Amino acid sequence: MILLLSSQFLFALQTISIILIPAYIFLSLEYKLIKRVKTKTVSVGPVKIGSAHPITIQSMTKVSTSDADAVIAQIKTLAAAGCQIVRCAVPTAADTAALKKIVSASPIPVVADIHFSADRALEAIEAGVAKIRLNPGNIKTKSEIISIIDAAKANKVAIRIGINEASIRDLGQDTPPDRRTALMLKEMRSYIRLFENHGFNQIVLSAKSSDVLRTIEINRAISKNFDYPLHLGLTHAGIPEDAAVPTAAALGALLSQGIGDTLRVSVAGDPVEEIRIANEILTSLGIRPRTEPELIACPTCGRAQINVVALARKIKTILALIHKPLRVAVMGCIVNGPGEAADADVAVCCGKDKAFIYRAGKKIATVSTEDILPQMQKQITSAAKKL
Amino acid sequence: MILLLSSQFLFALQTISIILIPAYIFLSLEYKLIKRVKTKTVSVGPVKIGSAHPITIQSMTKVSTSDADAVIAQIKTLAAAGCQIVRCAVPTAADTAALKKIVSASPIPVVADIHFSADRALEAIEAGVAKIRLNPGNIKTKSEIISIIDAAKANKVAIRIGINEASIRDLGQDTPPDRRTALMLKEMRSYIRLFENHGFNQIVLSAKSSDVLRTIEINRAISKNFDYPLHLGLTHAGIPEDAAVPTAAALGALLSQGIGDTLRVSVAGDPVEEIRIANEILTSLGIRPRTEPELIACPTCGRAQINVVALARKIKTILALIHKPLRVAVMGCIVNGPGEAADADVAVCCGKDKAFIYRAGKKIATVSTEDILPQMQKQITSAAKKL
Repeated sequence: MILLLSSQFLFALQTISIILIPAYIFLSLEYKLIKRVKTKTVSVGPVKIGSAHPITIQSMTKVSTSDADAVIAQIKTLAAAGCQIVRCAVPTAADTAALKKIVSASPIPVVADIHFSADRALEAIEAGVAKIRLNPGNIKTKSEIISIIDAAKANKVAIRIGINEASIRDLGQDTPPDRRTALMLKEMRSYIRLFENHGFNQIVLSAKSSDVLRTIEINRAISKNFDYPLHLGLTHAGIPEDAAVPTAAALGALLSQGIGDTLRVSVAGDPVEEIRIANEILTSLGIRPRTEPELIACPTCGRAQINVVALARKIKTILALIHKPLRVAVMGCIVNGPGEAADADVAVCCGKDKAFIYRAGKKIATVSTEDILPQMQKQITSAAKKL
Repeated sequence: MILLLSSQFLFALQTISIILIPAYIFLSLEYKLIKRVKTKTVSVGPVKIGSAHPITIQSMTKVSTSDADAVIAQIKTLAAAGCQIVRCAVPTAADTAALKKIVSASPIPVVADIHFSADRALEAIEAGVAKIRLNPGNIKTKSEIISIIDAAKANKVAIRIGINEASIRDLGQDTPPDRRTALMLKEMRSYIRLFENHGFNQIVLSAKSSDVLRTIEINRAISKNFDYPLHLGLTHAGIPEDAAVPTAAALGALLSQGIGDTLRVSVAGDPVEEIRIANEILTSLGIRPRTEPELIACPTCGRAQINVVALARKIKTILALIHKPLRVAVMGCIVNGPGEAADADVAVCCGKDKAFIYRAGKKIATVSTEDILPQMQKQITSAAKKL
């Protein structure tokens, strides 16, 4: 209702509110931290997915699943980087044959990625995976899908119904966006009904596209229409330097609206890079506590008296060795410097021939330009020790 | 109202709609391309800012404004990269003295960035800038602010009322987010009233923070409360590799909701990088037509039979020379390959020892692994010629 009110009415409402109660109390009702869209909870081994639980980060192994040792090594690297659920493709029987060993050695729940073959799904469930990812659209018969549902139910295995825009039937290059969303929703609804009719509700949903706006629209639609947990991702986003911006734009849009319960960043490259970007998106939105330092740096302008960028890069090198959520600000002038310093653990605010050093918002030293770096090193080390 | 409906009711509503009309017609009413939040229009020289006009990209020069030639050179580089409005800091009288020459040589409207000094604002207006950026909070007296408003009105100069979280009075490290938003809104409202009371309405608003979630919340609040055009940005975002993800997350969230009429990406580094990231955000959201190639690449998994990442990187090199909006897909298997190929101008879908080459969704050749690159080069060149 509020969104449909005219701005004049809103203005009047607000004027009244200012008279009656302090503005910030009124506004605090409307502008709060991200409120997750409510979903059911699904168990993926010991990991829970759904709005009552923290958003989890997933990735996928990029070696042949039949090579269990290589897969296990990659899973351990991913888990160490922060991956919480890992998926493995199982196109052949040799791949599912390796799953048992992989599952028992993996520190995180393993998901089998199924396409085309119901046999692979049944073998994966038998091998003990915690979840399978299924695109029911590419399983040949309904009875095969039902056999997978029954096996998953008997083994307490979750199923992600994962449809990709690229694999939706009836879509052509000319299909307009509205029609695409409608077709994806229709397909999703028919799958969900099939699962529910067979008494299965350990369902996670995903509908991916390689287009940012399509990803946002489809997921808003899915979130509005179904209350199963939602797995987000921009698919086929490209090599890391191409993938970061569109992925962050798509996921930023959805997560900031409370949409999304688990996510996978898709990067053509090292899967650890997927975890890094995913983690950056979650921490920058305040969804996940930061564990590494954050470097606030002013972009510099005609006011800057020293080379702020060079200084910021040197301080970045110092911070690379500190694995604590220290907030450090490098500012080029006094316009926003003191303000950013107030929000930082350590800050430097550079003027002409001298700079002010701050700790937790308090100016603690005035140093010459050549003393900035050693002073910052000292303060960063000391501040990190106290965290 | 719609947002407050229970999901059950929505579901019922939709079920009815499915009976009455094809789902895609119903859905097309709800899920459409980005609809801009309606704002007034403000003229910045020949450039219009507001919801009736395309979103514009801004940047800021990073050399001393007193050095007119250096500033002009940087503005020309920025304009060539796609910058549409450029801002220069003018902390000293030597800076405003250079503005006249800069304004007359600049191919794009020039904005003077004012802090602390009403004199600098009056000198900049006198020098012919198209807009000034003012943080009224750091101008000493109300009468000084009014003198700036009067001069701007007389000279048809627009004013951006730009407040930064870091420069808001009464904010401390412990001030909770709701209270911060409320204080920024209150400050903004008092400035707008002052301007309006003096018959001035060529106003653009901005309220920046170095925190992503705060940036999203403040701008949603400003957009909901005022109908002046909104200038977006995540301030002090850091060096380029740190800045891209949080900036895209913040702007993706806002732009996808139709919030924002002009934007500046803040990067501690080459300002051309600011334009590149801004442009990537706008094109990835479909807000601005793409002018450069787009490379869709599958992240690879246990299904991939060849090194897709290496292939994608080689194709990226070919694409770097083609300045046309070609969509190219490099896919590692047949799961999503044909679907992505359907949406691409040129695509390759790799199997074991061979690959399929597509043009506009049609399979046109089957090649051996070693022939992929020459074939793709040929098809990309030919497809680019036809665009």
